[in-house]
Amino acid sequence: MPYFDCSYRVPYADTDQMQVVYYANYLEYFERSRTEMLRSIGFPYSEMEKMGFFLPVREANVTYHSSACYDDLLTLRSYVSEARGARLVIVSEVLRGDELLVSGSVTLCCINSEHKVTRLPAKLLEAVKLLSKD
Amino acid sequence: MPYFDCSYRVPYADTDQMQVVYYANYLEYFERSRTEMLRSIGFPYSEMEKMGFFLPVREANVTYHSSACYDDLLTLRSYVSEARGARLVIVSEVLRGDELLVSGSVTLCCINSEHKVTRLPAKLLEAVKLLSKD
Amino acid sequence: MPYFDCSYRVPYADTDQMQVVYYANYLEYFERSRTEMLRSIGFPYSEMEKMGFFLPVREANVTYHSSACYDDLLTLRSYVSEARGARLVIVSEVLRGDELLVSGSVTLCCINSEHKVTRLPAKLLEAVKLLSKD
Amino acid sequence: MPYFDCSYRVPYADTDQMQVVYYANYLEYFERSRTEMLRSIGFPYSEMEKMGFFLPVREANVTYHSSACYDDLLTLRSYVSEARGARLVIVSEVLRGDELLVSGSVTLCCINSEHKVTRLPAKLLEAVKLLSKD
Repeated sequence: MPYFDCSYRVPYADTDQMQVVYYANYLEYFERSRTEMLRSIGFPYSEMEKMGFFLPVREANVTYHSSACYDDLLTLRSYVSEARGARLVIVSEVLRGDELLVSGSVTLCCINSEHKVTRLPAKLLEAVKLLSKD
Repeated sequence: MPYFDCSYRVPYADTDQMQVVYYANYLEYFERSRTEMLRSIGFPYSEMEKMGFFLPVREANVTYHSSACYDDLLTLRSYVSEARGARLVIVSEVLRGDELLVSGSVTLCCINSEHKVTRLPAKLLEAVKLLSKD
Repeated sequence: MPYFDCSYRVPYADTDQMQVVYYANYLEYFERSRTEMLRSIGFPYSEMEKMGFFLPVREANVTYHSSACYDDLLTLRSYVSEARGARLVIVSEVLRGDELLVSGSVTLCCINSEHKVTRLPAKLLEAVKLLSKD
Repeated sequence: MPYFDCSYRVPYADTDQMQVVYYANYLEYFERSRTEMLRSIGFPYSEMEKMGFFLPVREANVTYHSSACYDDLLTLRSYVSEARGARLVIVSEVLRGDELLVSGSVTLCCINSEHKVTRLPAKLLEAVKLLSKD
């Protein structure tokens, strides 16, 4: 599955007194990463919300292999591992150069503006299918 | 002016690699403090929003005297220093025991649900007046 | 297994524009919760660090059942589900009254001040054993 | 005084339920901005710390003119307004296109690894002087 990379510089704000990035912040990195991935395939999440689709998180799993540090220039990588019905699973990774620091997956559930579970927008499903044929 | 105190335990999440609380987090502490102060005088901010009043911040000033550390049990203190028209100024302090660590003030501006500047709710003004006569 | 509860009031800071608590913040809640649990069984984490033991997170899993909102007074609950060798697994839950909003587990790995994996402090293991006999 | 700009995309994480960026987060934006400015004049803050100089914040002032929103691509701007003795004052601004959203200043105080107040590194003072002659 093709992935999408973006860069992120670690600010002081993200560190904790163990001199590494605080463990919850990687879920913010995953958000930044999947947002840029969705933008890259033509579905900025901000547009989806304007169309009345929302993607709250149902599940998140994170494995911490090694630590990111202050001022590291990280690579945030994401790809779609599943897109079916209302369910979208995105795998994300945080790398420093070639070193994998943190990996995980986030399961999103598509809802409409009345908070009802609804199928993912057809155009998103098509874009993901095209991607996986590459 | 009478003040209101509440307690707060510093989590790892709030620290940075200088082994102290990251400077932006004190503005979160100020929020926690003024929320509890407003609740104590009978105006939970959540109720104000339900009544159609919002209090966005227009200005914030913070002086850092000393640092809070992980697991410190802090006192968060706030009092109203001005309440007139649409303008509410709240002074907040962060203490560890008797030691003043951080102090500052936040200027809030009352707006309604159409985002227009509007006078503070009359009941809030009265409550503040009563307070200052104590 | 006996659990430990503490309370937490949701500040504005923790919400996002979906009008609920942002998904990464629950990992902060888990931290607050397990810190108070460790304190309750006589092992404040701050003391552990002074003794030269550190507990970085190796894995975190979160399931989001429902959303916490601004000003909710939440119950943060934790218990030890495994404590063996260097490995400590803590299950945490976020509740509003009786309603389970978010649940998850965090796997911690004990290291010493030279960053070497080391057995959990004996006194911690004993305390956990006593707990599970209750 | 010449200034330095960098870009920043607002994630969901930074918003609050008023559908704008939470007020404390602008202090994180100021940090990102002054870090890139220091890097641009040849003084990455991470290098300063390795040389034994630290720059804790003594004072921060923020004025909120308008609000940044989710997915805005902001310009973060900073310049040095004072650099003398141990004292470094940096003015920062957050813009969306030409619109000034938030402005403020942060006063930093140079300390050494024994936490004693010390003069700013000579090379930093020189770099700032050269800048202001441009």
